[in-house]
Amino acid sequence: MHRYRSHTCAQLRKSDVGTTTRLSGWVHRVRDHGGVLFIDLRDHYGITQVVIDPDSKDFATAEAVRSEWVIRLDGDVKARSEDTVNKDLPTGEIEVYAREIEVLSKAAELPMPVFGEQEYPEDVRLKYRFLDLRRETLHNNIMKRQAIIADMRKRMNDAAFFEFSTPILTASSPEGARDFLVPSRIHPGQFYALPQAPQQYKQLIMMSGFDRYFQIAPCFRDEDPRADRLPGEFYQLDLEMSFVEQEDVLTTMEPVITEVFEAFADGKKVSRNWPRIAYKDAIRKYGSDKPDLRNPIEMQDVSDHFRGGGFGVFAGILDADPKHEVWAIPVKGAGSRKHCDRMNSWAQGEGQPGMGYIFWRELEGKFDAAGPIAKNIGPERTEAMREQLGLELGDAVFFAAGDPAKFASFAGAARTKAAEEAGLINEDAFEFCWIVDFPFYEWDEDNKKVDFGHNPFSMPKGGLEALENQDPLTIDAMQYDMVCNGFEIASGGIRNHLPEVMVKAFEMTGLDQATVEERFGGLYRAFQYGAPPHGGMAAGVDRIVMLLCGAKNLREITMFPMNQQAKDLLMGAPGDVDKQQLKDLHLKLNLPKE
Amino acid sequence: MHRYRSHTCAQLRKSDVGTTTRLSGWVHRVRDHGGVLFIDLRDHYGITQVVIDPDSKDFATAEAVRSEWVIRLDGDVKARSEDTVNKDLPTGEIEVYAREIEVLSKAAELPMPVFGEQEYPEDVRLKYRFLDLRRETLHNNIMKRQAIIADMRKRMNDAAFFEFSTPILTASSPEGARDFLVPSRIHPGQFYALPQAPQQYKQLIMMSGFDRYFQIAPCFRDEDPRADRLPGEFYQLDLEMSFVEQEDVLTTMEPVITEVFEAFADGKKVSRNWPRIAYKDAIRKYGSDKPDLRNPIEMQDVSDHFRGGGFGVFAGILDADPKHEVWAIPVKGAGSRKHCDRMNSWAQGEGQPGMGYIFWRELEGKFDAAGPIAKNIGPERTEAMREQLGLELGDAVFFAAGDPAKFASFAGAARTKAAEEAGLINEDAFEFCWIVDFPFYEWDEDNKKVDFGHNPFSMPKGGLEALENQDPLTIDAMQYDMVCNGFEIASGGIRNHLPEVMVKAFEMTGLDQATVEERFGGLYRAFQYGAPPHGGMAAGVDRIVMLLCGAKNLREITMFPMNQQAKDLLMGAPGDVDKQQLKDLHLKLNLPKE
Repeated sequence: MHRYRSHTCAQLRKSDVGTTTRLSGWVHRVRDHGGVLFIDLRDHYGITQVVIDPDSKDFATAEAVRSEWVIRLDGDVKARSEDTVNKDLPTGEIEVYAREIEVLSKAAELPMPVFGEQEYPEDVRLKYRFLDLRRETLHNNIMKRQAIIADMRKRMNDAAFFEFSTPILTASSPEGARDFLVPSRIHPGQFYALPQAPQQYKQLIMMSGFDRYFQIAPCFRDEDPRADRLPGEFYQLDLEMSFVEQEDVLTTMEPVITEVFEAFADGKKVSRNWPRIAYKDAIRKYGSDKPDLRNPIEMQDVSDHFRGGGFGVFAGILDADPKHEVWAIPVKGAGSRKHCDRMNSWAQGEGQPGMGYIFWRELEGKFDAAGPIAKNIGPERTEAMREQLGLELGDAVFFAAGDPAKFASFAGAARTKAAEEAGLINEDAFEFCWIVDFPFYEWDEDNKKVDFGHNPFSMPKGGLEALENQDPLTIDAMQYDMVCNGFEIASGGIRNHLPEVMVKAFEMTGLDQATVEERFGGLYRAFQYGAPPHGGMAAGVDRIVMLLCGAKNLREITMFPMNQQAKDLLMGAPGDVDKQQLKDLHLKLNLPKE
Repeated sequence: MHRYRSHTCAQLRKSDVGTTTRLSGWVHRVRDHGGVLFIDLRDHYGITQVVIDPDSKDFATAEAVRSEWVIRLDGDVKARSEDTVNKDLPTGEIEVYAREIEVLSKAAELPMPVFGEQEYPEDVRLKYRFLDLRRETLHNNIMKRQAIIADMRKRMNDAAFFEFSTPILTASSPEGARDFLVPSRIHPGQFYALPQAPQQYKQLIMMSGFDRYFQIAPCFRDEDPRADRLPGEFYQLDLEMSFVEQEDVLTTMEPVITEVFEAFADGKKVSRNWPRIAYKDAIRKYGSDKPDLRNPIEMQDVSDHFRGGGFGVFAGILDADPKHEVWAIPVKGAGSRKHCDRMNSWAQGEGQPGMGYIFWRELEGKFDAAGPIAKNIGPERTEAMREQLGLELGDAVFFAAGDPAKFASFAGAARTKAAEEAGLINEDAFEFCWIVDFPFYEWDEDNKKVDFGHNPFSMPKGGLEALENQDPLTIDAMQYDMVCNGFEIASGGIRNHLPEVMVKAFEMTGLDQATVEERFGGLYRAFQYGAPPHGGMAAGVDRIVMLLCGAKNLREITMFPMNQQAKDLLMGAPGDVDKQQLKDLHLKLNLPKE
């Protein structure tokens, strides 16, 4: 017989009754039922109930064991009586009567329990992560994470992508965040950088003639602690394809991600035939470039109903500047004073003067448009607006007015808030869309110059001609985001593979050719020697796992995360190093004054 | 039609004759056959021959293209005439008559050609790696590498292992080599370390109740340049299992690795039922703990035939010290004066006084044992030795004498050399074995103390009792290596999961409990709270790929390697950083004086 087990703790069934078994695992729980001891024995796979009679040879051992001790036991598989069958447990029809118990490893008094999953402070959970990870929810999340990643790999392989690892000790990359640096011992005063993303390498893989690349890639950014990011490292499903246009990348990845979601959505609906929404339209309709399409609300421009009308505030705003607009946020089912008042005070909490609204109700047997705005603009304009918005009795509309560039994100937040309040969001769905046509450049007000809107390596629509002749702020990038339930879960683009276009694109932002050659030497050099048109994207693995686990915190889906202060409490990192190590690395500390 | 291609360059067959096609790829080669141009168009998948008639609309474009330009072309698929069919090419029965050619990207004059694979200096190859990687041999090696890794993953998944990534920004690990350090910006004066191996994490994964872990793990060691190691990073197939004994790990991994090798051995024989060889026996038989079992030679102790015999040199050596021995290296087919002379002068080149031998020949119609040693010890002893060694006419034996601890590695080298000279090594085979029972401790002559022979986390055979009562230098470790064709390709052990045994094991090497707790805090803490017995191993992915590709150099199987001086010539790493970055990291340079 095997030294430790003949079965896992999830294997025994009614058909095993009458056989003997050897099990090993952790003591999940011990109960004393009038002298008879019951041990729930747990391993990775499940739980089996063990019974120890007082006349059992190793009863004394059984009496000594405590939660989380590791034991091995031999025993007889017996059927449970009908009233003690546990239907929630795969092994719930049997129990094992222990004949022999061996303690493999004891446990000291636990700093936090495993059984019961009581809430515990995060620093305890991280310091004793090995206990935390034994808890059912976290254990299952981590298993789901690995299953999702294995599934992604399989689907990428099936889609004829090849997985290549790219270097982790590399040169500084221009992804916009801060690099982690690694001092070189052999080259005094020089540093490697950890990759913020394998952007340049994946493009170089295309230059090297490998047609389709992907990687579950570790990425590193030295960012200040943020609630929605883990400090240090995170994982991307990174991919790149040669000889493709934008729609090729989209139609390749849409089924991959749809199917990954369908495989792990636990029955939630996953949308198909994802809409492509231009960046400008997304802002107009949803006030966001990561719209949550589970929210059915689409905003509309209703300026014409206010221009020169009786509601002075909006009419005045529209008069003040031709850029100004009034947007409507039409909300089905929000047609009550209470709902509108709540939106109004929410808006005030957001620092706004308030939130204008109209709602439609039955008043004294008649259809009535309620609220001061309706009164001010009069029934004709109110009715025209209602018809434009397709609203009915019991619905409401909220307004945002001014310069759309300034109020769009507030309008987007109001759209979300209103839908939440009205219960319009389907929590049992994953709704996807592609956001396309991002602006290639944006205005950098601090430095009074244009800068890249997103990825500097994207191809500008219209190519060199657009760069030379078009107002740069009107050029679109061949750049796209994959959005799910209001989260950007992937981002990509068709790359700029032409050196003259690359030089011109950077020149517009104030970087001259010499700087481009120096900063992106490998890639720039590769563009000189036959570069295929190519494009790709990178999806946030952690975010996808969070969505599929329904987790609110990255630390709930990461095995060994650092805390918010970028400390690994389990391993004690970062830590001090000795003088010799510093000397070997040609460094001295330069500590801040107390 | 797709913007770039309707087919890859490997797809068109005779059955496509008469259709039109669109292809994109690199110009592999242009030939001018009396006005008609032939372009070999290459992509990742293959090569298609393109014909451009002088009356073709885009003949001028075709005349302009040079090697490695990227073009798109439309054309008609035609059958090749029978005498021009190329049987070596999957597309060799057809050619494409170009109707339209578009240049997608030009190439400047090439610093090294792709076609023909001429040898080029390594610094050029690394700086222009994107060209180097387009070359057939390297391209195929990299594809084989990714296929091997994908296959390993699949087999590990099939063997019910789960893949988990472990942190890359972590604490210093005690693998014996130098850590790469990463300064923390948020915690002045403190450093993360890149993992030399995920040893502690994988053990912690077992403590966390995940039963079987694996990972294709990036590992980092800041070592001085060595010909057989890449500077910086390398990959391990890392794995760990709970509730196992040594034989469980061996029987789990033997089929996985056998099948990976069988899948990629290109018809070479892969051994099954690998022998388990104790470390001591490996040294005695092969003079090495990584024996090449393709070499059939097994050494034997032949001291008794020399003790008190007529060959004074060996008899004297044996008399001088009871530890001394004479080992025989019996070599089938090496029975000639020429062969023995060559071995003798090889040994002198290795700094030895020479190499004693006997060989058996036919002399004047009689069976004759030739060489001075045979003469000195006389025919009886010579014949007894021949019988012990099972040698025949035409065979030879070479000798090494003295303290086996000192001459064993020389004897091992002589065994290899003799087999090479005699052509005894089967180049078309992968011969595996397990080396087991490594010494737990070894004597550290410099510091006059015992130190760990291999992995300090292994369980000593006999546990605490052995540590307390046995001569430490006689304790075996539950430690094993997987060896293939003379290379250690994996190493592992059953771990020490008991805190008191861990403390005692380190104490023997001079590390007290407080130091152990500080240095291995996470693991030591985990051992206090219910640790399952566990073990595993780590296989060198790079070495396995080298063996399967028949590559002699790690840079031939690595996509973007650094050079021997730990420089990435493609990306320009390591590089300078600016003052602000250093200041942010609380560092100053401390450069060596010129």
